[in-house]
Amino acid sequence: MFVIGIDVGGMSIKAGLIDDGGHILQKEVCPTVITDGYQRVVKDMAGLVAKLCQKADITEKDLAGVGIGCPGSIDSANGVVTYSGNLNFNNAPIVREFKKHTDLPVFIANDADCAALGETKYGSGEGVASCIMITLGTGIGTGFIYNNKLIQGGYGIGGEGGHICIEMDGELCTCGERGCWEAYASATALIRQTKTAMAQNKDSLLIKVAEEQGKVSGRTAFTAYKKGDKAATEVVKNYVKYVATGLITLINIFRPEIVILGGGISNEGEYFIKMVEDYVKAHSFGKEFNKLCRIVKASLGNEAGILGAGTLAMIN
Amino acid sequence: MFVIGIDVGGMSIKAGLIDDGGHILQKEVCPTVITDGYQRVVKDMAGLVAKLCQKADITEKDLAGVGIGCPGSIDSANGVVTYSGNLNFNNAPIVREFKKHTDLPVFIANDADCAALGETKYGSGEGVASCIMITLGTGIGTGFIYNNKLIQGGYGIGGEGGHICIEMDGELCTCGERGCWEAYASATALIRQTKTAMAQNKDSLLIKVAEEQGKVSGRTAFTAYKKGDKAATEVVKNYVKYVATGLITLINIFRPEIVILGGGISNEGEYFIKMVEDYVKAHSFGKEFNKLCRIVKASLGNEAGILGAGTLAMIN
Repeated sequence: MFVIGIDVGGMSIKAGLIDDGGHILQKEVCPTVITDGYQRVVKDMAGLVAKLCQKADITEKDLAGVGIGCPGSIDSANGVVTYSGNLNFNNAPIVREFKKHTDLPVFIANDADCAALGETKYGSGEGVASCIMITLGTGIGTGFIYNNKLIQGGYGIGGEGGHICIEMDGELCTCGERGCWEAYASATALIRQTKTAMAQNKDSLLIKVAEEQGKVSGRTAFTAYKKGDKAATEVVKNYVKYVATGLITLINIFRPEIVILGGGISNEGEYFIKMVEDYVKAHSFGKEFNKLCRIVKASLGNEAGILGAGTLAMIN
Repeated sequence: MFVIGIDVGGMSIKAGLIDDGGHILQKEVCPTVITDGYQRVVKDMAGLVAKLCQKADITEKDLAGVGIGCPGSIDSANGVVTYSGNLNFNNAPIVREFKKHTDLPVFIANDADCAALGETKYGSGEGVASCIMITLGTGIGTGFIYNNKLIQGGYGIGGEGGHICIEMDGELCTCGERGCWEAYASATALIRQTKTAMAQNKDSLLIKVAEEQGKVSGRTAFTAYKKGDKAATEVVKNYVKYVATGLITLINIFRPEIVILGGGISNEGEYFIKMVEDYVKAHSFGKEFNKLCRIVKASLGNEAGILGAGTLAMIN
């Protein structure tokens, strides 16, 4: 039996046909057209399902279901996207609309929640009952799994771990509030911190590295840091602290077995994860008495979205 | 059928015989002797169980079980207090020890978790599936109930919501870290903030109120605030913000149906709860699109500990 996982992003919709073992057998992609409302997005998703069946020479009867991972606040129980800024959805009844195109069971959840499901089923968290999955990208996505169940939040609203406050009256966040973790520890925040350091340290290697890389990116500070640059070291040290501070809040609440770091920044590698882990170990509550969770890198990479959405259809 | 709920505090052990309807039929109290190790504390708890049976003229056979609420990090699955500073316990196997005195099922959980259970069974959260219970006292206790289940945290460590960071490099907390919510929003923190305001505002009504009350307490700032004192208004306004900021972090993660405020500070009354609720509503994530939880006062008062511990025995 197969499932189809659909990863809906602001730019593109990616869909994959997945077998029992978590292998993606076929993939299809199309652009996300958000100007024509949710009906168009759902129609395009259904089109990808049809194409995947055709390519694999199977019918809907060979499928156990369709899982959809979507950014924003999702009411999974009712199949509704409560709100998604990226997709311009507001109380969009995605599952009901999708059922006009298919007789298959259709499930939807927040994309970060799906990524957490995928990592615990097929990735770095395989076999783990409780984990926190963090995606350090443009923003911060969070997925919480506790005793093998997603903690999606009441009222059908996915947990918004990126908007925990780590600094009262601190940096302005895209959500309109101040001091959110996302405003300090996302890739966007790191780029801002790097630019500030460049403006304040005209002789820093950061400037040369950014020139070589063609722009200031989430990698700039790390590259200059590895070459021993002082200003870059300060940027990286602070960034590690920002990432760890939010993690400590989440760890002190959930005490998961592992924390899985994903998103562009996590590709920086083991030394970065180790720096975060060291900070977390030194500052978590009850560090003297209690076991602490491991911090690991997400392993599903670009496939995490499709696999996570597919996992949603498998476990339901 | 009855259960016995035992509330173990640093000063006293309170036990109650509870019927199906959540009525405490008999109560017994004894001092907590922490100098002789956990064996003595358990022996005294067993003594209270025997006394309650005697007073009610019942035997162990009329009891469904014993529930124990205990401060600190608890491994409920194994019946062990991993660590409790108040009780000087370190990996104390309470349930195993208790079974030397009784054939009854014995359960143990963190006292704040028990309070949350009690409030959702018999108190302000009756009938609610997901809630956050916060105790604003000497420290901050937190209990999380999600879809009718306690979120106790992995590794058998209760969620330590008092130690989420709301201000990096902020006020020093009793846990040794800086910026914990507890260091801003506990009654202890409010007293410190009140004393600071008194030192900085020699003409403030705060000084007269503290004199009248015989000391600076968690009530001092509120009393002077209600009389229109400027410095007290500043203290109360900031304190509301501190309480709300931690709540917003927890709400953005869990999206509970309700937040229940308990502990001494919550006795300040409805106007204080309303101030906290207004701040939370104005600053939670997705406030424009998503329903927000209500904030209510805990209703079980002094009985919360016994009833919560008893609930633990009922639901297991």
